[in-house]
Amino acid sequence: MVHSVAVIGAGPCGLTSMKACLEEGMMPTCFESSDDIGGLWRFKEVSEPNRASIYRSLTINISKEMMSFSDFPVQADYPNYMHHSKIQNYFRMYAEHFKLLKHIRFQTLVKNVNQTPDFSRTGQWEVSSQELRHLKENTSTAGTTRGLKTWLGKKVVVIGIGNSGSDIAVESSRVAEQVYLSTRRGAWVIRQVSDNGLPVDIKYLTRFVHILSQLLPIRILNWLCETKLNAMYDHTMYALKPKHRFFNQIPVINDDLPLKILSGSVIIKPNVKEICGSSVVFEDGSTVENVDTIVFATGYNYDFPYLPSSSKYMSGHRLGLYKHVFPPNLEHPTLAVVGFIHAFGAIMTQAEMQARWVSRVFNGQVKLPSNQAMIKSVDKDTKDIEKNYIVSRLTPLHVDFVTYMDDLAGEIGVRPSLLWLFFTDYQMFKMVLWGPVTSYQYRLKGPGKWDGARRAISTTLNRVYQPLKTRQLETKEASVAGSLFKRSLTLMAGGAAVYYIHVRNPTTIPTLLANLRPQTA
Amino acid sequence: MVHSVAVIGAGPCGLTSMKACLEEGMMPTCFESSDDIGGLWRFKEVSEPNRASIYRSLTINISKEMMSFSDFPVQADYPNYMHHSKIQNYFRMYAEHFKLLKHIRFQTLVKNVNQTPDFSRTGQWEVSSQELRHLKENTSTAGTTRGLKTWLGKKVVVIGIGNSGSDIAVESSRVAEQVYLSTRRGAWVIRQVSDNGLPVDIKYLTRFVHILSQLLPIRILNWLCETKLNAMYDHTMYALKPKHRFFNQIPVINDDLPLKILSGSVIIKPNVKEICGSSVVFEDGSTVENVDTIVFATGYNYDFPYLPSSSKYMSGHRLGLYKHVFPPNLEHPTLAVVGFIHAFGAIMTQAEMQARWVSRVFNGQVKLPSNQAMIKSVDKDTKDIEKNYIVSRLTPLHVDFVTYMDDLAGEIGVRPSLLWLFFTDYQMFKMVLWGPVTSYQYRLKGPGKWDGARRAISTTLNRVYQPLKTRQLETKEASVAGSLFKRSLTLMAGGAAVYYIHVRNPTTIPTLLANLRPQTA
Repeated sequence: MVHSVAVIGAGPCGLTSMKACLEEGMMPTCFESSDDIGGLWRFKEVSEPNRASIYRSLTINISKEMMSFSDFPVQADYPNYMHHSKIQNYFRMYAEHFKLLKHIRFQTLVKNVNQTPDFSRTGQWEVSSQELRHLKENTSTAGTTRGLKTWLGKKVVVIGIGNSGSDIAVESSRVAEQVYLSTRRGAWVIRQVSDNGLPVDIKYLTRFVHILSQLLPIRILNWLCETKLNAMYDHTMYALKPKHRFFNQIPVINDDLPLKILSGSVIIKPNVKEICGSSVVFEDGSTVENVDTIVFATGYNYDFPYLPSSSKYMSGHRLGLYKHVFPPNLEHPTLAVVGFIHAFGAIMTQAEMQARWVSRVFNGQVKLPSNQAMIKSVDKDTKDIEKNYIVSRLTPLHVDFVTYMDDLAGEIGVRPSLLWLFFTDYQMFKMVLWGPVTSYQYRLKGPGKWDGARRAISTTLNRVYQPLKTRQLETKEASVAGSLFKRSLTLMAGGAAVYYIHVRNPTTIPTLLANLRPQTA
Repeated sequence: MVHSVAVIGAGPCGLTSMKACLEEGMMPTCFESSDDIGGLWRFKEVSEPNRASIYRSLTINISKEMMSFSDFPVQADYPNYMHHSKIQNYFRMYAEHFKLLKHIRFQTLVKNVNQTPDFSRTGQWEVSSQELRHLKENTSTAGTTRGLKTWLGKKVVVIGIGNSGSDIAVESSRVAEQVYLSTRRGAWVIRQVSDNGLPVDIKYLTRFVHILSQLLPIRILNWLCETKLNAMYDHTMYALKPKHRFFNQIPVINDDLPLKILSGSVIIKPNVKEICGSSVVFEDGSTVENVDTIVFATGYNYDFPYLPSSSKYMSGHRLGLYKHVFPPNLEHPTLAVVGFIHAFGAIMTQAEMQARWVSRVFNGQVKLPSNQAMIKSVDKDTKDIEKNYIVSRLTPLHVDFVTYMDDLAGEIGVRPSLLWLFFTDYQMFKMVLWGPVTSYQYRLKGPGKWDGARRAISTTLNRVYQPLKTRQLETKEASVAGSLFKRSLTLMAGGAAVYYIHVRNPTTIPTLLANLRPQTA
């Protein structure tokens, strides 16, 4: 059984991994190369080299209830789509509440992770790390106003219409002379503000919709979604219409793009054919001249430079991991990758579920199948991804959110049973069936059962509405005292959440859990 | 009969007034205090004192077809919601096409307008103006990036949820620490990107909808509109819901506000009770402390300091003008105010219609009723405004767009007759009935009839779609040669347009048309 675990990175995946280790009686040590937690969500005025960065005005495109960890709901009065500063606050509260900070070695860079000579017997790893000198914080405020000056009066071509590409196009178009957004395939674009103003994930990421999606033919589902989207804005008229169907790719989430297209600030263009000096030639023969800036938002290379090649199993073109977590070819399951996934759902809750599974595997409560069986499963996943999603070579991490969550939950024994709920707790049955698939649902029973889960589920919509109650209307509202009481009840309840849409920047920082024998270089 | 006309101001109202004068055989002289045409739409990096200004990224909230002058459609390839630079280009082309520039005296400030001693006989006016020294252009680029630095990290309270207030709240929230938007009554908020992605005015400002609105009880109309808006985002949930019904006030147009509210960047607050130092106390007792900036977007004072008080007739609290144009108490109808109006439709086309009427009155082709009859009409308007619209004291300029356009068109004899079209031109009948009420419709017949009008009407949707055809889709599209041919046809056709929603900043620059006896101070 594993006793000590190295966690690489103190972003959300690393934090929840530490928490899962502690919960399962193991001692984590987290190596974080920067001086703070938060990973991607740690905003810096000046972006640091070789580190993914976010911009000043960024708000997440997943609603707070769908990104909450399963036993720690985001504060009731926090907005539904949080600004990065609030997300960072939430992580900080999570880390403090579960006493994670003391396990983190900041400014410590992992150089290598190697199997120990007696790995066959012990399953242990050697982690080589390097303490970074305490670098003076770069407090230069050059390029504040979120670097908008970069774009001022410029002619910009953004290549790639993923969430990042769309965001960059929209943001830069506020001051650029003209922005062109080039796309090879087009995209289905959805809004965060969904029917009746509910967050789109709260509205549609329900178990009922999931069951429906399992029962209806995919052709009908695609037709339904595409018809609904075209009623919002005709994707043909907006030059966005892709060749692929709605469910063949995770849609782009952008509420601002349609108006930017209609006002001509962002012009949709086909794929780039060539770049000649400052001219960009597109595949339809059209040319944009005197381009100042080209942004390649064309995808990511995934790499684990510190891992020995023996631990990497390639399945087709992708790194093969059993259920996207465990290398399937090791003698001992003591290495895991957490948060290396992409779904129509949030990373944080999926990473948490992975971490809960991993920690149960590490401490021996849950067994993995044979290497052969795992390899077979990995190869099947590869084929399924290639079959169901387009551009799978660039995005080899696609899973269906609820299916994946339920699958891992089944491994741990925390998957909510509708049948059991129907007979034992009909109120909860209705909420689990009709309500959003929050991660609280995976704390109702089994290992890690949390007494606050039921209340967290039943008060989900309260927390959705709470931050919006800022101006009293004529409809009857609870008195201030009443609402304070309600809020404190909610806070007392604690809670947790599953969610829904990939964070804007898909370079999640994968976290490594390993049986630790530290060795500082 | 009037021979020479003074036009004060070379904004869109002034330009179209000059054009109408020339068309009716009179000689205009335009006094413009700045060094360029465009009025409000003339963007300056640094805003000038005592002059309304626009910000760098501003795009208009009226679609191009609905703001086109009636015989000069906006270029087919221009976007539907134009950036101010494109609007200014359009005005420039209009001024050049109709040879208006030579009639403008730039940097000339009107100091006084007085009746001549023999006014009773001649109806003439004396205009005193002052030539301003040629001021060096302020080319300082301080505060570029549209002055976003002003808001960076600030706590901002915006008071007033009109179009300007909402815009300022949304724009500042991109970099501000927190923005509070205080509203006394709330507002109905609509999107520019309407059903299927059509501009909202193209979709809903049709003659059919207008006829329907005359036939259905206002209660049902309100219910229909409010239900539709709440399906987009529940105005109660978003703390926006006003006490008044949809048609009691011109709605706010803002596509970005809902997401800003849902993400907490903009927090809706009730009316301000008091301001104590840097604290703002609201009527519900809540307080925001350490406020850096308070923006009053609470309305405008209208004033005509250069006019003699004898020409101003007060009707209740408002300046009474016959059909919002002519002072009803003058011996001769030789003074007119153009563009002093507010409707769910664009200023430019309404001003053009007023100017067409005014020039026909000036040259004697159209007679006005007696002073007594005009005063009676003005007082009735005042009562109607107070009855139909809320906050009428602050916004005394409300009219119903199509009703008003048709009314003035009737005075001139250019109102399109559906019955006549039904029997003589069934194709056009359908377009005029079902299509958007563009200003081209008022050039089909009568004085100022324009041969291009029919084509301009029938190609309206082509010009809506044209700028969006930037990425070839699999649906069959015309060849490049074909589309070029189509475009040149459209351009040859010329055209014109009526439209729909008030420009963002309601301080329109009213234009004065008068019988001129110039006198330079």
